[in-house]
Amino acid sequence: MDISGLKRDLDGIKLEDHPAIVQQKSRDFYWYSPILKRQLDHVKGDAIVSPKSDEEVIRVLAACHRHGVPVTPRGTGTGNYGQAMPLSGGVVLSLAEMNAVKSIRPGRVVAQAGAVLAQIDRETRAHSGQELRMSPSTYNTASIGGFVAGGSGGVGSIRWGGLRDLGNVIRLRIVTMEAEPKVMELTGEDVLKVMHAYGTNGIITEVEMPLTASYDWVDVIVGFDGFEEAVRFGNDLAVQDGILAKLITPIAAPIPYDYFKRHQKYFRREQSIVVCMIAPHAIDAFLAFTSRSKGEIVFRADKEPDLKGLPPAYELAWNHTTLRALRVDPTITYLQVRYPSPDHVDYIMAMAKRFGDELPGHVEYIRFDGAIGTAGLPLVRYTTEERLDEIIRIHEDNGCWIFNPHRYTLEEGGMKQTDEVQLAFKREVDPRGLLNPGKMIAWENPDYDYRTSKPFLFKGLQRAS
Amino acid sequence: MDISGLKRDLDGIKLEDHPAIVQQKSRDFYWYSPILKRQLDHVKGDAIVSPKSDEEVIRVLAACHRHGVPVTPRGTGTGNYGQAMPLSGGVVLSLAEMNAVKSIRPGRVVAQAGAVLAQIDRETRAHSGQELRMSPSTYNTASIGGFVAGGSGGVGSIRWGGLRDLGNVIRLRIVTMEAEPKVMELTGEDVLKVMHAYGTNGIITEVEMPLTASYDWVDVIVGFDGFEEAVRFGNDLAVQDGILAKLITPIAAPIPYDYFKRHQKYFRREQSIVVCMIAPHAIDAFLAFTSRSKGEIVFRADKEPDLKGLPPAYELAWNHTTLRALRVDPTITYLQVRYPSPDHVDYIMAMAKRFGDELPGHVEYIRFDGAIGTAGLPLVRYTTEERLDEIIRIHEDNGCWIFNPHRYTLEEGGMKQTDEVQLAFKREVDPRGLLNPGKMIAWENPDYDYRTSKPFLFKGLQRAS
Repeated sequence: MDISGLKRDLDGIKLEDHPAIVQQKSRDFYWYSPILKRQLDHVKGDAIVSPKSDEEVIRVLAACHRHGVPVTPRGTGTGNYGQAMPLSGGVVLSLAEMNAVKSIRPGRVVAQAGAVLAQIDRETRAHSGQELRMSPSTYNTASIGGFVAGGSGGVGSIRWGGLRDLGNVIRLRIVTMEAEPKVMELTGEDVLKVMHAYGTNGIITEVEMPLTASYDWVDVIVGFDGFEEAVRFGNDLAVQDGILAKLITPIAAPIPYDYFKRHQKYFRREQSIVVCMIAPHAIDAFLAFTSRSKGEIVFRADKEPDLKGLPPAYELAWNHTTLRALRVDPTITYLQVRYPSPDHVDYIMAMAKRFGDELPGHVEYIRFDGAIGTAGLPLVRYTTEERLDEIIRIHEDNGCWIFNPHRYTLEEGGMKQTDEVQLAFKREVDPRGLLNPGKMIAWENPDYDYRTSKPFLFKGLQRAS
Repeated sequence: MDISGLKRDLDGIKLEDHPAIVQQKSRDFYWYSPILKRQLDHVKGDAIVSPKSDEEVIRVLAACHRHGVPVTPRGTGTGNYGQAMPLSGGVVLSLAEMNAVKSIRPGRVVAQAGAVLAQIDRETRAHSGQELRMSPSTYNTASIGGFVAGGSGGVGSIRWGGLRDLGNVIRLRIVTMEAEPKVMELTGEDVLKVMHAYGTNGIITEVEMPLTASYDWVDVIVGFDGFEEAVRFGNDLAVQDGILAKLITPIAAPIPYDYFKRHQKYFRREQSIVVCMIAPHAIDAFLAFTSRSKGEIVFRADKEPDLKGLPPAYELAWNHTTLRALRVDPTITYLQVRYPSPDHVDYIMAMAKRFGDELPGHVEYIRFDGAIGTAGLPLVRYTTEERLDEIIRIHEDNGCWIFNPHRYTLEEGGMKQTDEVQLAFKREVDPRGLLNPGKMIAWENPDYDYRTSKPFLFKGLQRAS
């Protein structure tokens, strides 16, 4: 790769090629997966380029197109499947310095792609008591562009469904990868062309997101003797239409006691819990509802004299559950499961009983097609790749869907099929296939057989080593 | 009744006994029902008393208790089942002059019972861009206390469920009917003791309600060739978690053309419609969604050059649909139906096909136990009481539940059984049974057999004549 030629062309644009920094900025949280850790550990770009404006993005893409250099966009690198890792090297395009919140109106905010979620909320709260509808548990570090390009939902999805639901992203501005890059504005259904496409078909530089009313959410944790009681409580709470909750997360023993070290004093080791974020004006109703259950309120942030050192509830949930377990026990990994509704509780318990402590249970309640559903993120006490595959197969044989977090391609992450809209859009805006190579199987190998149980191996992956 | 003695005791409190005014203020919209019209037309109190404070309410109740005078509370009289009609005469206690909005905070408002919903929203919007979660179609005239005491949900229930869902009423202040009336504050589950009890077990003087973000909702009407397409479109829209809607109302032809006179020019007579209120920031997504359907957008308030003379969308929906039909054709009445979920669309269409133009279809999508459900308010081209009973029986025989709007008692309105909590509370706070006599069968006749198809006839009803 002609990095010196590229450097000349990018004169005036921030470029970093110090090997240690390039390696650091070529990574995300792929190491949650022992499979991805082995496959991607060597992945490294050639330079980190940090544009400050759409104009600079256009210059970078034009230059990379001219030099035939792959470009992999990156927000703050909080993904878990190598979304922002440059499999074939080249330029890592960091959007982190394009982080301005540009306008705030009732129900909507416009921000540059690199704006961090928590920063957006600080500004929208101060402006008019509004906040983003949903965010990952990496709220304090993740960028909005990265969330849209690589995420699917999170805290708040109990109320608003997933990112891909129409209305949860209002507008995306992208820059195309062509000799003369174009700026396009996608609205309505068109936003789906580039959402959760890992930046393989356009560089998102600006987003317009819907806002909702912001509240001083109260973190509450309810303890139960068994995981099933916790799961059932979560479901019963989730279907209470009048109790405004932003997070409802059942987690099986002994996860809370063993891995939530800062909260450990609130739990008994055999206690399963439900982590909740409740609107302050719903607390009375929440308490009335909870008093009917067998649950015990073991933690209430609004009654705690000192919250110093305690992470917020959302940093116990979603992939922070996994992170906290990994910090204590590095052999742990996780799965992503959808249990079919409306019998999701039965499926959850069937799998929990089948695997016992090999897969300590963790469920997120979410809204899905107008009803309450679940996203499962059970921990996995990892032994071998073969056993992990077997666990996945047993789930699938029992009717549960796996969104495999041990794969770096879009399709293997869960779709198991080509997204024709995204593929067609890539043909249009990245005809040379320079954007984030190796992530879209449909582009790399149109004949790939998804029925095989073997992972797709991107041939370009060795180039980065 | 010793009205002169009572008058002396109430010196200084506003009391009206001019017969024409007393008659007017003894009525609500009971005349929607030909049955109730016949039964209640003669109902008339002896005086309208309008306290201005809790202290005056206490004085009124103490005096009425002393004199053995029944007291029937009234907001603005927008009920449809005689909720606020004094079946045994006595005092009609108008709360209309206790209408102050007392405090507004994030997510909550405190108001006196007589405050009109639209007035509350004007103040909460100006204060902090907030509004009530739900309201009846009589939003511009109904009082908040009357809504809580006599209503069940309405515009906004698509998002928040019904009034009785925990969290949709935060706190109620009531005054008891005793020799020395007490003030009680009900919170949590206790609010259910007096909700939708028609003021039979305590006079609500102050309410605390949750608020949500206020938007300049856009009225949109989508036209379809058939009612079934309209119903299915409404359902598909209702389950879109990312598209913020406040109202989704399918209405069968020829209701829109024949009865929505001010909107008539937008419809063809054979067109069924779906009336929607959509958040401005969801309009792009709504249009993207609608373009997939066979629907045609026949009206968009945000594109209309002149809205003068056009009622807002919510005044085409809920019981305003009935009202508009009645104004054109006084023989029309209506029913209230719940079609079992998740197959509600099939039930709706089965009944629509069975009855054809005898019951022009009208459905409100609502959230119910965490999922999308329906409240049916079909119009009825009324012929005889026997035929109306038969229509009800056919619905019940086909698995649909009827909340009969042709009955003035709590139980016959739909519960078909005693609400033991409300009955026990009445024993506690109205031991002499002076509050709104005749509305709670469980109090009047504990042995009443709900299996009979005959309406309950309150013996005290003749006293008012």
